[in-house]
Amino acid sequence: MNYDIIVIGSGPGGYVTAIRAAQLGFKTAIIEKESLGGICLNWGCIPTKALLKSAHVFNYLNHAEDYGLNKVENPGFDFSKVIARSRGVANKMSGGIAFLMKKNKIDVIMGTAKIQKGKKVSVVDADGKSTEYTGNHIIIATGARSRELPNIPQDGIKVIGYRQAMVLPEQPKTMIVVGSGAIGVEFADFYNAMGTKVTIVEYMPVIVPVEDEDISKHLEKSLKKSGIEIMTNASVESIDTSGNGVKATVKTAKGDVVLEADILLSAVGIASNLEGQGLEEVGIKTEKGKILVNDWYETNVPGYYAIGDVLPTQALAHVASAEGITCVEKIKGLHVEAIDYGNIPGCTYCSPEVASVGLTEKQAKEKGIEIKVGKFPLSASGKATANGNTDGFIKVIFDAKYGEWLGCHMIGEGVTDMIAEAVVARKLETTGHEIIKAIHPHPTVSEAIMEAAAAAYGEVIHI
Amino acid sequence: MNYDIIVIGSGPGGYVTAIRAAQLGFKTAIIEKESLGGICLNWGCIPTKALLKSAHVFNYLNHAEDYGLNKVENPGFDFSKVIARSRGVANKMSGGIAFLMKKNKIDVIMGTAKIQKGKKVSVVDADGKSTEYTGNHIIIATGARSRELPNIPQDGIKVIGYRQAMVLPEQPKTMIVVGSGAIGVEFADFYNAMGTKVTIVEYMPVIVPVEDEDISKHLEKSLKKSGIEIMTNASVESIDTSGNGVKATVKTAKGDVVLEADILLSAVGIASNLEGQGLEEVGIKTEKGKILVNDWYETNVPGYYAIGDVLPTQALAHVASAEGITCVEKIKGLHVEAIDYGNIPGCTYCSPEVASVGLTEKQAKEKGIEIKVGKFPLSASGKATANGNTDGFIKVIFDAKYGEWLGCHMIGEGVTDMIAEAVVARKLETTGHEIIKAIHPHPTVSEAIMEAAAAAYGEVIHI
Repeated sequence: MNYDIIVIGSGPGGYVTAIRAAQLGFKTAIIEKESLGGICLNWGCIPTKALLKSAHVFNYLNHAEDYGLNKVENPGFDFSKVIARSRGVANKMSGGIAFLMKKNKIDVIMGTAKIQKGKKVSVVDADGKSTEYTGNHIIIATGARSRELPNIPQDGIKVIGYRQAMVLPEQPKTMIVVGSGAIGVEFADFYNAMGTKVTIVEYMPVIVPVEDEDISKHLEKSLKKSGIEIMTNASVESIDTSGNGVKATVKTAKGDVVLEADILLSAVGIASNLEGQGLEEVGIKTEKGKILVNDWYETNVPGYYAIGDVLPTQALAHVASAEGITCVEKIKGLHVEAIDYGNIPGCTYCSPEVASVGLTEKQAKEKGIEIKVGKFPLSASGKATANGNTDGFIKVIFDAKYGEWLGCHMIGEGVTDMIAEAVVARKLETTGHEIIKAIHPHPTVSEAIMEAAAAAYGEVIHI
Repeated sequence: MNYDIIVIGSGPGGYVTAIRAAQLGFKTAIIEKESLGGICLNWGCIPTKALLKSAHVFNYLNHAEDYGLNKVENPGFDFSKVIARSRGVANKMSGGIAFLMKKNKIDVIMGTAKIQKGKKVSVVDADGKSTEYTGNHIIIATGARSRELPNIPQDGIKVIGYRQAMVLPEQPKTMIVVGSGAIGVEFADFYNAMGTKVTIVEYMPVIVPVEDEDISKHLEKSLKKSGIEIMTNASVESIDTSGNGVKATVKTAKGDVVLEADILLSAVGIASNLEGQGLEEVGIKTEKGKILVNDWYETNVPGYYAIGDVLPTQALAHVASAEGITCVEKIKGLHVEAIDYGNIPGCTYCSPEVASVGLTEKQAKEKGIEIKVGKFPLSASGKATANGNTDGFIKVIFDAKYGEWLGCHMIGEGVTDMIAEAVVARKLETTGHEIIKAIHPHPTVSEAIMEAAAAAYGEVIHI
């Protein structure tokens, strides 16, 4: 069977690419070895948000009196039902992708793909049967998996990655989370909210180390206040699973510490899925475990493309989707702009949420840019006060000379839905004053963005 | 005492104006007859959001099982505590304004102001003592109050306005809400969520009649589903408060209907506070109960200005604030742009929330503009699905020829914090394609804006 476009992998990179390709009139196939929607829908973005929502509602049950309601006696939950809800959400979304494939007349081929020379792809299905397909354009979107550190081998039972963390058969009483990126912090927050005693171990001096330092420090305070233990400048040297739980020997500035817990979650980043796909045989260049591509996602071998977590670009669902769309629009010959990787938002859905885009203060200073910085605490926001949740702030960074919006860093309830304003404004090359003069509705938390911008220019009203 | 600037009224128009004036170096006084923060902080925007938050949390208690949590047996509340929380939030914010006045060295003069010729203002305090002040610039920001219809006279006990609705001594079992603008719908939603049987009576064919018709229709369905009775094309002809409750005779297409309830809330708009302020004596022009001003908020009498709800412009807190800032920046001689009243967002904080900016589809068509319309239902949003709340949609309207973003209409949880994106993008003169290509983070509800824009151009992915 010959296709215009064959997409390998049906995560948010692959399935979005396939849909856009079909819209553009390409005869399109998508190959998936496990579940439509990939990690994001089945084992990542979506089911974790469902878990966190349960935790969020459970928090309300525990604090009903703060809202003038009667105390909820013995708020509780059945852990398996919380997990089941999350799986239900994932399955629903995955089913939705199946519907979209059908609607867009995309052939879904279930099996494990291997690329071959001559723009061929062989697919081995569950029964071991191999079928060969040809495609004028072959797009590799096989994503990534939990990275395993040599000193933290995952057994999938007591030492686990994010996949197992999402479907634990029972709630652990204690948990060590190694790594404090988005995945680590989100699981730490979820399990802590549900009553597990959680300790985060982070190698770097601060948690969520990709964020602006002010955000990292604030989040550390908030998470500690919620009951999470946090060790920074700390690394797991070895683990011992011989007993009932896990013992982790952690190297700290003050010497080695041994932590014990039921479960250790390793959340130290991801590794691209490159193995066994025929990349070497076809001669596709890789470097440090990532496929190399140009601005239009072409590999060094004509007709073969790659997008998403197999690339050295940010390993984020929305990046993968955008790359895939850009890739097929370019193939179609549309006028396409290359993605601006400096304007990619990142979100962490713990409580308080974190969202950011652009340069941190440190990065801006390292670039030698003269900057204006504005901060606005949510404690000064009327809407946040009415919501009963004033934990957090908005920080904005402008170029002092031209007013360019260099970075926006937010921590607080709902900020993951508010960062889009900064993304769009930066894309449209706003200045600080245009943000100050954009009339934000009152009372909203989003006003805090306008106020933070005003703070950068000495025009803030509410602080 | 002589001031550079005297502001009369300390609502979100007045106090923001005073702060900005002080920042600009003006010797500033603000006159308030009741509570700092005016209606918005004390009897409007802020305390209603606190009430609605209690209702929101109460809803979670009633639906705990939907999130995998144990059923909450007999969720309940003490109505007076819910009210007390709301008052606490209002008082806290009002106290915050007092702090800001002090910090900015603004003189707060408590009393009732009357302007006089020669840029004078006399203020009568609580003891009846009158003091005269002079100001180089006098800014009238006295706001508005609940409008009384002749056939719905308010006794403040059984027939009430928004002020009383916020502090009822006990929860009514039944309530008639006349008018379905933001105020009416928010109170209807709050009382219904807390268990009051609510009937909305709306004169127009649809509820929230300023919104796009699709929004109005959707909200009507959602509110009805939540248990609110809604009568449109219906007007209250007369009321009878002689019995235990209120009887309202409502004229409908099918003839007169008599409704009975404990309380009738009249939410049929507002009336500007112009009376007894000396407007006639000074010779300030008014029309249809509103003060007339130019683009810089100057009245016809030099030295006298007016902002906020006393003007014919949109009666919204954020409009008043922006007008006040514009007014004093112009007085200062800064380069100021006149406010674009076509880019003012409006929000209604019922469940689902409503937020919009720009033209409705009907308005765009009436202007003879060829348009592209895109809609994206939240049922197709992964984040909304994980949140367990997919009720709503995003609708966007673009100029077919130039791609200008003419209008954005949103209904759903959290949209009041998401409309700012549209405000900013419209201010920055975005095109539809720039919104499609602005990489929104996944998974967020804000992606639905990008998807709605893509839908307008046949590029939507998830439907």
